Amino acid sequence: MASDLRAVGLLGGGVIGGGWAARFLLGGIDVRLYDPDPEAERKLGEMLENARRALTRLSAVALPREGSLTVVGTPADAAQGVQLVQESAPERLELKQTLLAEACAAAAPDVLIASSTSGLRPTALAAGMAHPGRFVVAHPFNPVYLLPLVELCGGERTAAGTVARAKAIYGSLGMAPLVVRKEIDGFVADRLLEALWREALWLVKDGVATVAEVDDAIRLAAGLRWSFMGTFLTYRIAGGEEGMRHFMAQFGPALKWPWTKLTDVPELTEELLDTIVAQSDEQAAGLGVRELEQLRDDCLVSVLQALRGRDIGAGAVLARHEQALSGAARARVLVAGDDLSQPLALHSAQVAPDWVDYNGHAHESRYLQVFGDASDALFAYIGIDAAYLATGSYFTVESHLSHLREALLDDRLAVTTQVLDCDARRLHVFHSLWREGDGDLLATAEQLLLHVDTVARRAAPASPAVLARVQRIAQAQASLPRSDRVGRAIGIPRG
Amino acid sequence: MASDLRAVGLLGGGVIGGGWAARFLLGGIDVRLYDPDPEAERKLGEMLENARRALTRLSAVALPREGSLTVVGTPADAAQGVQLVQESAPERLELKQTLLAEACAAAAPDVLIASSTSGLRPTALAAGMAHPGRFVVAHPFNPVYLLPLVELCGGERTAAGTVARAKAIYGSLGMAPLVVRKEIDGFVADRLLEALWREALWLVKDGVATVAEVDDAIRLAAGLRWSFMGTFLTYRIAGGEEGMRHFMAQFGPALKWPWTKLTDVPELTEELLDTIVAQSDEQAAGLGVRELEQLRDDCLVSVLQALRGRDIGAGAVLARHEQALSGAARARVLVAGDDLSQPLALHSAQVAPDWVDYNGHAHESRYLQVFGDASDALFAYIGIDAAYLATGSYFTVESHLSHLREALLDDRLAVTTQVLDCDARRLHVFHSLWREGDGDLLATAEQLLLHVDTVARRAAPASPAVLARVQRIAQAQASLPRSDRVGRAIGIPRG
Repeated sequence: MASDLRAVGLLGGGVIGGGWAARFLLGGIDVRLYDPDPEAERKLGEMLENARRALTRLSAVALPREGSLTVVGTPADAAQGVQLVQESAPERLELKQTLLAEACAAAAPDVLIASSTSGLRPTALAAGMAHPGRFVVAHPFNPVYLLPLVELCGGERTAAGTVARAKAIYGSLGMAPLVVRKEIDGFVADRLLEALWREALWLVKDGVATVAEVDDAIRLAAGLRWSFMGTFLTYRIAGGEEGMRHFMAQFGPALKWPWTKLTDVPELTEELLDTIVAQSDEQAAGLGVRELEQLRDDCLVSVLQALRGRDIGAGAVLARHEQALSGAARARVLVAGDDLSQPLALHSAQVAPDWVDYNGHAHESRYLQVFGDASDALFAYIGIDAAYLATGSYFTVESHLSHLREALLDDRLAVTTQVLDCDARRLHVFHSLWREGDGDLLATAEQLLLHVDTVARRAAPASPAVLARVQRIAQAQASLPRSDRVGRAIGIPRG
Repeated sequence: MASDLRAVGLLGGGVIGGGWAARFLLGGIDVRLYDPDPEAERKLGEMLENARRALTRLSAVALPREGSLTVVGTPADAAQGVQLVQESAPERLELKQTLLAEACAAAAPDVLIASSTSGLRPTALAAGMAHPGRFVVAHPFNPVYLLPLVELCGGERTAAGTVARAKAIYGSLGMAPLVVRKEIDGFVADRLLEALWREALWLVKDGVATVAEVDDAIRLAAGLRWSFMGTFLTYRIAGGEEGMRHFMAQFGPALKWPWTKLTDVPELTEELLDTIVAQSDEQAAGLGVRELEQLRDDCLVSVLQALRGRDIGAGAVLARHEQALSGAARARVLVAGDDLSQPLALHSAQVAPDWVDYNGHAHESRYLQVFGDASDALFAYIGIDAAYLATGSYFTVESHLSHLREALLDDRLAVTTQVLDCDARRLHVFHSLWREGDGDLLATAEQLLLHVDTVARRAAPASPAVLARVQRIAQAQASLPRSDRVGRAIGIPRG
């Protein structure tokens, strides 16, 4: 199913619909957008800009070629020639029913139709649809292009197989579908979110805390844990050696204590609204929504990368998606017709915020990280894949880095690689790091790599196939001019 | 106030009290622990082991010398010779009242007395205290040694100044104190936590989701955002260009929809408990509590480090504490009597999980990261501080790394640094990276550094004072033997 998705029709391009557009377009899927807001295209353009910025930083795996965006005039038009229609209109039942019915009437029979509703029941939403069997709720979270969760919930007339189809589609986009086991208002996530939000409103209304203090109470403690474990696993740990039953025995009674009783909904009076709005303005400290979005996205990127390193939660979802993407893109491998007479351009990167050190440029170790990634791209190019790595790999034994110019935040970098020499065990390469745009040479790295038997952990010859490719490149590049940085020693020259 | 804290008396050494013990001891504070549990010392030892592991990975700033732990037999004894008593007994009002009254009666008049209660009111807790003016609730979060939040709440008889004193003390330990503006049950954070937890229990009871699915619904979406922004700032962004009032207008009504109405407390029947315990066991997948704690701590370390890079939320708290610590520890600076005749040992580190690459050892860039940190330590040693960096700094222009042995996960590393040569602008150094324990030499780095005017971004002489120190070291080390790796070029030798 996954590979079937080539085009999507979107009904609504606001915060959620625009986020979907970004996820689909940057995932290589074409989008047909219907939105009556005359500003929709401008807003979407800005959101796309933010999404591109975030996604290029998130992952070293290259994004597929962007899908194309077509703005259309009716819901029926959005449903033409697509495999999925995603409705993200405001949370008004009748409006959503009308849009979904129109799209359903116009779409080909095998088109999946989904709603992004935060909490309306699928059975009610599908009331006006001629073919409700293909309808499912697919509820995402803001920003849709970064957060992996999508809740899937079928209605009474949803056909067998529709939820599984949706799961495959959203999974192929790098999302983590969660199938809600019963059709209920608010599904799972929003029930939890609203409970916390309601309590937060009480705290502000009662003057116990400001909105910034409520946010601190979350992000400086439980929010950190919630980014990788939810509430149950966290509490299991809090139960100590005695585990979950002990925790429930110890803290279950507290559920009936006064601090959990304020469960009415606070009246949203003008006074309370004024308080919240004023405190929120103060908290934003003059940052506009685009700046706040970038701040949020930068943090999400860093947290997702941190969790990817731990292979847990959203980090594990990301890691799996990257594997799928690099499998799909099939890392470039040397083939017969390749022109090897020039240095190879196999790797590019971008200077991320956490690369920048107190001197205001990328830390020296980040240059070597990029050169190491370029060596990895070369290894893939000469046929070293996951199977090969089980028994053999090249280890770096020496590196000579020269820094010529500063790599600055957001600089896009490209590496070219020249093979200087090789024998059965050794590989001598010279990388050049260029800044895209002005084409300045920022740094070079001369490296000596040693082929290793990764089981015995000692030097061993490369496989004949790998060696043949290495030799082919070395031979083709033998007559290339060499940088005067090759073969140099370090020192302070004395006149 | 901060520097006054040398010793703390702890009443209770369970999950929370033990976490306090770890934070205090690893922060260099002596601890006197009272806990009637005969297993308390063993449990605390295990928790301390986990805390040491997490904190050494968290920060490159060296931890202070560990405080000493004394186990005592009575609450009164715990209050002797300390500046703070921290009570962390089970959440039973009478028990806490008794412990606090006993400690208060025994403690010197200027000792601050605090309770870790999650939700009992300070006025009630202080009922039996002879001197309630010095009492405050200081409510931390699990794991106490990693999470920065501590809620401070005074009671009716808490003296003016007590909360400010507490704020200074906990702040000096790297925590972020949040002063609760009104005395209420559950303070701020637990009100929010319990609201979400109550809803989570309903979802499991009603069969809408399993405990693992509830956790996924959190950690794959909102939980990621909650680790750096709370609920209000997140929703402000969701309001789009129109901001907070628009968001409230749009989503305020949803608070009254059915999905926020299930606010009764579910009955904790045996059946519900069995369900939760069984699903929790399945979720834990055989991991014991120590392993889960380590998993949690590893993730927290990674998330805190990611957020430190963004200087936001808990990451900003960590960054400020590191600055304070390095200021307090006063990075080692060259003084008259220093022995400079041997390579300088100024930096150590440990191989963290995200340093390890697909070859099962630290990525080559991490070696250069450690060498770069060693150069930074050398800069501090020769008198380059934050003020100096405003106009001058050394930039690396060339590095020659040689890898001799593999640095593996958790290896503790130490760097020694030899100054080979210098002139007014240039500094030629040779770092050696050793594994502590077996003393193996893992790698070397020969580096040429150039002194730069950081405003003009061009080469410029170092200040006379810095230069004098550099020359003193270079002179003292002139006759040291040089590694045969110094001054070498890279290449494949041909016989």
